[in-house]
Amino acid sequence: VNAEVLTIGSEILRGLVRDTNFEMILARLAEVGIAVTYHTSVEDDSERIGEALRVAAHRARFVIVTGGLGPTPDDLTRKTIATVFRRRLILDEGILDHLRARFRERGIEMPALNEAQALVPRGAKVIENPRGTAPGLHFTVQETDVFALPGVPAEAEAMMVHYVAPYVRERAGGVRIGRRVVRTIGVPESALAQALAGFEVEEDDVRLGYLPHTGGVDLYLTAASADATWLEQLLDRCERTVAERAGAAVYGRDGETLAEVVGRTLAERGLTIATGESFTAGALGAAITAVPGSSRYFLGGVIAYANEAKQELLAVPGELLRSHGAVSAEVAESMAIGARERFGSAIGLSTTGIAGPEGGSEEKPVGLAYLGIAFDGGAKVERFQFGGTRFENVSRAGAYALDLARRHVGTLAAWSEASSRS
Amino acid sequence: VNAEVLTIGSEILRGLVRDTNFEMILARLAEVGIAVTYHTSVEDDSERIGEALRVAAHRARFVIVTGGLGPTPDDLTRKTIATVFRRRLILDEGILDHLRARFRERGIEMPALNEAQALVPRGAKVIENPRGTAPGLHFTVQETDVFALPGVPAEAEAMMVHYVAPYVRERAGGVRIGRRVVRTIGVPESALAQALAGFEVEEDDVRLGYLPHTGGVDLYLTAASADATWLEQLLDRCERTVAERAGAAVYGRDGETLAEVVGRTLAERGLTIATGESFTAGALGAAITAVPGSSRYFLGGVIAYANEAKQELLAVPGELLRSHGAVSAEVAESMAIGARERFGSAIGLSTTGIAGPEGGSEEKPVGLAYLGIAFDGGAKVERFQFGGTRFENVSRAGAYALDLARRHVGTLAAWSEASSRS
Repeated sequence: VNAEVLTIGSEILRGLVRDTNFEMILARLAEVGIAVTYHTSVEDDSERIGEALRVAAHRARFVIVTGGLGPTPDDLTRKTIATVFRRRLILDEGILDHLRARFRERGIEMPALNEAQALVPRGAKVIENPRGTAPGLHFTVQETDVFALPGVPAEAEAMMVHYVAPYVRERAGGVRIGRRVVRTIGVPESALAQALAGFEVEEDDVRLGYLPHTGGVDLYLTAASADATWLEQLLDRCERTVAERAGAAVYGRDGETLAEVVGRTLAERGLTIATGESFTAGALGAAITAVPGSSRYFLGGVIAYANEAKQELLAVPGELLRSHGAVSAEVAESMAIGARERFGSAIGLSTTGIAGPEGGSEEKPVGLAYLGIAFDGGAKVERFQFGGTRFENVSRAGAYALDLARRHVGTLAAWSEASSRS
Repeated sequence: VNAEVLTIGSEILRGLVRDTNFEMILARLAEVGIAVTYHTSVEDDSERIGEALRVAAHRARFVIVTGGLGPTPDDLTRKTIATVFRRRLILDEGILDHLRARFRERGIEMPALNEAQALVPRGAKVIENPRGTAPGLHFTVQETDVFALPGVPAEAEAMMVHYVAPYVRERAGGVRIGRRVVRTIGVPESALAQALAGFEVEEDDVRLGYLPHTGGVDLYLTAASADATWLEQLLDRCERTVAERAGAAVYGRDGETLAEVVGRTLAERGLTIATGESFTAGALGAAITAVPGSSRYFLGGVIAYANEAKQELLAVPGELLRSHGAVSAEVAESMAIGARERFGSAIGLSTTGIAGPEGGSEEKPVGLAYLGIAFDGGAKVERFQFGGTRFENVSRAGAYALDLARRHVGTLAAWSEASSRS
């Protein structure tokens, strides 16, 4: 059982507004276990709206349309429905009374234009609009239910909540959609896919999706069933399998961020952290402190862009900077140690590199970065060669530096413990 | 001449990511005068991708597809194109060499799965991918040009800019769409609208749009004409009018960021800057250094989350912290002065506040922030009460701190000079 969302409005296709109705409808349908398989946006043009309506009514079980029900000449949904599905428009006296009453309440006489909103295609049910003038419409085309809602977000949402979602839930036969996300960092998408090869054959009730972003690769597990218990068990099992095969790359689940996972573990173990940043220039500190309550474990950091700052604030020896250069494993290590000592924290993290687009050389190309960690009894540095834009490189470096901390404090163990919830 | 955008990816239809590729493609096509008449999103399912491809190729002159070109089993675009349009997939040795070379650069052997990315439907041209592994594809179906681009936003954008937009521009002929953006900070949207009341009546060939975001409000001017000279003159005139009426809130134009404007002015005047951050915890440094070449004027910063760090690294007197609290105008001023002195910079910027969601009190509620600036001969602090999420509050504070620097160094004058280009 699937749904298609059709959002009508030139403003969407001119990039002037975000299509928040689509996002709202997605969320409301997910709550009643309905997946959206297509989403189409179309401008205010009757021929194009008609084409999109025809296509949608043909391929989906439920079609939810927003927009084009207003009183102005560019509101074409009502008329187009009548034309495409060959239904006469009939003036609904009940709606007309309701419209007049609403205007009266506001002390305005109803403009003649609004009369068009009382026209209903033959055979269509009217969906009440408690928040505005445009009523919604509900009709069927063969086996497909089509709902036409106003484009005003609050009005569309009210109709989704009070009419469409309950209707759809009843017809969908109680099927639920379950989703789990296993979050990884440090292993390329294709290598994860290799480690997970065959998984979907073994577990053919589950779909596995990969979502790479600058902070790693998220693995999505999705399944549908009317049996909620079975669905949970299936997803629990698959989540464990996927997490095992993805191995040490796994840092968390569902909406959890890497900074949250690291922060939680630091807090649990009573550890503190500080940063010495060159490459990321504050982005690492900002990522750590994006977590509410991070002041419990984050003491602070030094953004040491200039070499003098590295020497004076992080106690990097001038000799090291001269002999190895600021972008080197040696300086990264010294910065991490310096940050740890400067703030008296348990852990020091450091970043140095060439963010680009200028400043690279053959030996030290743009995107080269050294990320360091210092802790009680030692330090460690990893070398990375990033290949994205300046922003992406910095964002990745922040994530990988956090991952150094994760691997050091052993958050994977914490995750596995947590994942045995049920 | 119209275009259809087809974005492929289950993550879009599950509401997990915003469809930023759609927004980017819209903007790039608008620049070459092409309107998008349909936008469809479809999940990673070959039957549904196939259906959407067939429909789009049938009804649009240009079809731009993103997503599904990666190496994993849920990347189905390549195969579906081959099936739907009956083209055999041929292994392209050139792409294979390019892929292997990219992995070699990163010191990894290419996983076997990536070989699939070297398959090209017969008759399709390959669009180079300078930023990633997945090459793009360009082929024709009857009179329709179809472009398949990777889902990774930076890669899709590079191909739009270097290949698709120039190709489409040449074939589209005729009307151009012109757009100007006047960027403002520090004045609410409704106050700007009041200052600009009547503008659209005076200039009825131009549309004025407001786009508020955490860094201020952007004012969009859009117009269309086949006469490029007339269009430029119209937009020049309107841009001047809008900038004049919006006044001191205006910091830049088009794609320019506040950090770029401030950075350019600092560089021109041979000034340097340093930061002392508590509230923003690195986000201000990261914003300043998002600009390539910022190492010329940004010396570094201290992220002073703990009070000890404020005292030791920014020389904030303990007495000040005790009597006024860390979130106070006095401490903000002391932090800005401390940052300036610590790094020996011309300007010091500081942030302190309550980011939330916890930690607020009646006297000092969540979202309260003091932003400071220190310079040769003085210092200044401004008080803000932000009302967003933790992330939004931090992001706004970073922007407003930069704006303190802008107003101090007088970048508005620089902008006005620069805006007399033609």
